[in-house]
Amino acid sequence: MTINQEPLTTLEAALNARDVAATTSALRELTKSGELADRMASLTRAEARRLAEVLGDEALGELLGELDPSDAASILSLLATVDAADVLESMDPDEAADVAAEIAPERVDQILVEMEPIEAEELRGLMLYPPDSAGGRMTPAFVSIAPDLTARQTILALQRLSEQAETISYVYVTDEADHLLGVLSLRLLVLSPPETPIAQLLIPDVVSVPVLADQEEAAQVLTERGLLAVPVVDDDNRLLGIITVDDVADILEQETTEDIERLGGSEPLEEPYLRASPILLWRKRVGWLLALFLAEAYTGTVLRHYQSEVEAVVALSFFIPLLIGTGGNVGSQVVTTIVRAMAVGDVRFSDVFRIVKKELITGLMLGAVMAAATFVRAMTLSVGIDVGLTVAIAVSGIVIWAAVVGAVLPLVLRKLRVDPAVVSAPFISTLVDGTGLMIYFTVARLMLHLG
Amino acid sequence: MTINQEPLTTLEAALNARDVAATTSALRELTKSGELADRMASLTRAEARRLAEVLGDEALGELLGELDPSDAASILSLLATVDAADVLESMDPDEAADVAAEIAPERVDQILVEMEPIEAEELRGLMLYPPDSAGGRMTPAFVSIAPDLTARQTILALQRLSEQAETISYVYVTDEADHLLGVLSLRLLVLSPPETPIAQLLIPDVVSVPVLADQEEAAQVLTERGLLAVPVVDDDNRLLGIITVDDVADILEQETTEDIERLGGSEPLEEPYLRASPILLWRKRVGWLLALFLAEAYTGTVLRHYQSEVEAVVALSFFIPLLIGTGGNVGSQVVTTIVRAMAVGDVRFSDVFRIVKKELITGLMLGAVMAAATFVRAMTLSVGIDVGLTVAIAVSGIVIWAAVVGAVLPLVLRKLRVDPAVVSAPFISTLVDGTGLMIYFTVARLMLHLG
Repeated sequence: MTINQEPLTTLEAALNARDVAATTSALRELTKSGELADRMASLTRAEARRLAEVLGDEALGELLGELDPSDAASILSLLATVDAADVLESMDPDEAADVAAEIAPERVDQILVEMEPIEAEELRGLMLYPPDSAGGRMTPAFVSIAPDLTARQTILALQRLSEQAETISYVYVTDEADHLLGVLSLRLLVLSPPETPIAQLLIPDVVSVPVLADQEEAAQVLTERGLLAVPVVDDDNRLLGIITVDDVADILEQETTEDIERLGGSEPLEEPYLRASPILLWRKRVGWLLALFLAEAYTGTVLRHYQSEVEAVVALSFFIPLLIGTGGNVGSQVVTTIVRAMAVGDVRFSDVFRIVKKELITGLMLGAVMAAATFVRAMTLSVGIDVGLTVAIAVSGIVIWAAVVGAVLPLVLRKLRVDPAVVSAPFISTLVDGTGLMIYFTVARLMLHLG
Repeated sequence: MTINQEPLTTLEAALNARDVAATTSALRELTKSGELADRMASLTRAEARRLAEVLGDEALGELLGELDPSDAASILSLLATVDAADVLESMDPDEAADVAAEIAPERVDQILVEMEPIEAEELRGLMLYPPDSAGGRMTPAFVSIAPDLTARQTILALQRLSEQAETISYVYVTDEADHLLGVLSLRLLVLSPPETPIAQLLIPDVVSVPVLADQEEAAQVLTERGLLAVPVVDDDNRLLGIITVDDVADILEQETTEDIERLGGSEPLEEPYLRASPILLWRKRVGWLLALFLAEAYTGTVLRHYQSEVEAVVALSFFIPLLIGTGGNVGSQVVTTIVRAMAVGDVRFSDVFRIVKKELITGLMLGAVMAAATFVRAMTLSVGIDVGLTVAIAVSGIVIWAAVVGAVLPLVLRKLRVDPAVVSAPFISTLVDGTGLMIYFTVARLMLHLG
């Protein structure tokens, strides 16, 4: 794969020449071609150290912030302890905490010892919370002031504080014990007369998120209220950090990936695919696969039950995969649509009758088309008109059945407080396989006067 | 359903009593219980008019902005033309344009005539662009100033402009012909000495998005660069509007819904599920269903080809759904994981060998488990050890095959510039059905010395 060679050699050459501009442009090339993560994962110890030397702490910290935390962690681990500490210090604290969480504990301790005590303390604090909680997502780099300042004094204070802060769009007002008293927006601050006391400007009813809440809750608050940042507080309403709006896309991406993996019939991987070992993939898949196998095993019983019908008209067996496959396809179409509509809040249990009516009508129309297609297919296999009519009627029954089951099941599960995401495409296909066969052979018995 | 009755009567009662506080609290209750959209969709003409009267233009405009545009449009259509114009005027222009796009054209023209000419012109402009383009998403409510002001003059100007603007975090600098010259942040403005000329503060290299670009591009720029807003420009770099960060979640939700619907094997609905008519659902599903049917029809040919094997050992037919179903489940697990990993940029074509190796190892481990399970199941159906071994070997072959095909196919399609999202769970199940049967009967021929 010669295409990949060029930027790789360029980065190597740039590092060897200790050329800042060339290194930066090589990194930009790698980012553009989407190969940055791969290249970074294959850095040697010497290259990593030269990268730190050439870029400096700030630029390297920024680069690591763009990588997957575990890739960033492996690069940091290649550096001398003091350098790793400097780079971590230069990073956004929430990103630094994610990276530190991926480094071996004893190595982290060595690095933290080399950091400024305050920043090390901050990082230790952030590492206490689960990565997908509000506490794991928050940054302590917010701006807070005492309630007894004026607007002018606050703006002066901001000039000192703004460099360390991740956002100054909101300034939080706290008492000496860090209790959150209110918030004021930079906009309001700028547009008010300089001598206005802060106590007059602050908005006391601040929406906040508990530190142990799911990160999704913070994303929802930010999105629904159109905020740029939301404060994270402990049980005593003490301000611990903020989550900014630029985290929303990340949070939504993680949560959506989990939903999609569930819809595909496996447990969420919880890490990037290329990083997942075969053992992890196996563990996330085998449970559902066995559960579905047990459910599907029932089809064997059904078929043995109808053994005499199959023996009498072997042609019936030709259509087994076609009929249950079509049922599974319809079920999968319906289930993914309904589960997604539930996830975004478009649909809930009280809509069940409207949904069933809609899917019944759609199912009838789809069933008619599929019946015609199946009849034509049966004729091309020259199995006789009676078998052709049998499979045509059976397929329309299966299509309608699959559409209704696919629509109702997620709603009923939600009502029973089971996560509707367990109704994956494979789940509904499996369910329709066994029941579809019963529809098929019941129609066959009636039409072909068997049994 | 008595639970739903209370807030409904409350809203009616509040409207009849023309009680602002009670109406607001009834609306809040409906929002909390998730019934707001339903209730709004069932407003009568008299109720809608009373709602406008009680809430006033501003509050009603805000309420409509939270609804689905087509629901908002049907409420607006119930109002008198003058009132509808006032409410539209009070809304954020981008939201107003989305709503106006859902009203019948001749009715929109009547309403636009009643609006302030400038605002009507603005709305007409926004309605020109496709709703999923940057132009359809943008708001013209940005703040721009001439380059010859000082920081102090700019802040004074902001005090006048800020009410109409959606965000003042960034102030854009434009020449008389609206060409985008640069941007300055409110933060920088506040923290600079008052007499600094704007020309010294502005950042000339502004990232912008073309007006006809996909809205996803704007979301990517906002997310990757951590911006609060991105300017939208025409071919001549004239500033037309901005897209703010609070639109990102909306855009991502829309795009993800499309991805998920495709993975489920149908075309994206492009509207909320409850709003989609059965005809629309039918149209979005029937194409893929027929395509999959054609692909699956092949299984009939395969089975007819092996008819003598099935007649010799009818027990072989018992396992058809179980074997191909398991193959489909594995394929669906792998495909959804890989397609999602490609969508978020975790995986690309150059990773194909790593992916195949990973899936081969995982497939071997899964195949071993499924072979054991299948053998046990065969014994419970008392079909004999030779058939049991046949199905056990066949299932492990099918599992490995499904895992590899499911992993490679999306990558190859992307390489061929076909959207990998066409490889839905139903698609891979269908593909594995026909090929799985060939694996099954080939193993059967060899093991059972048939044919």
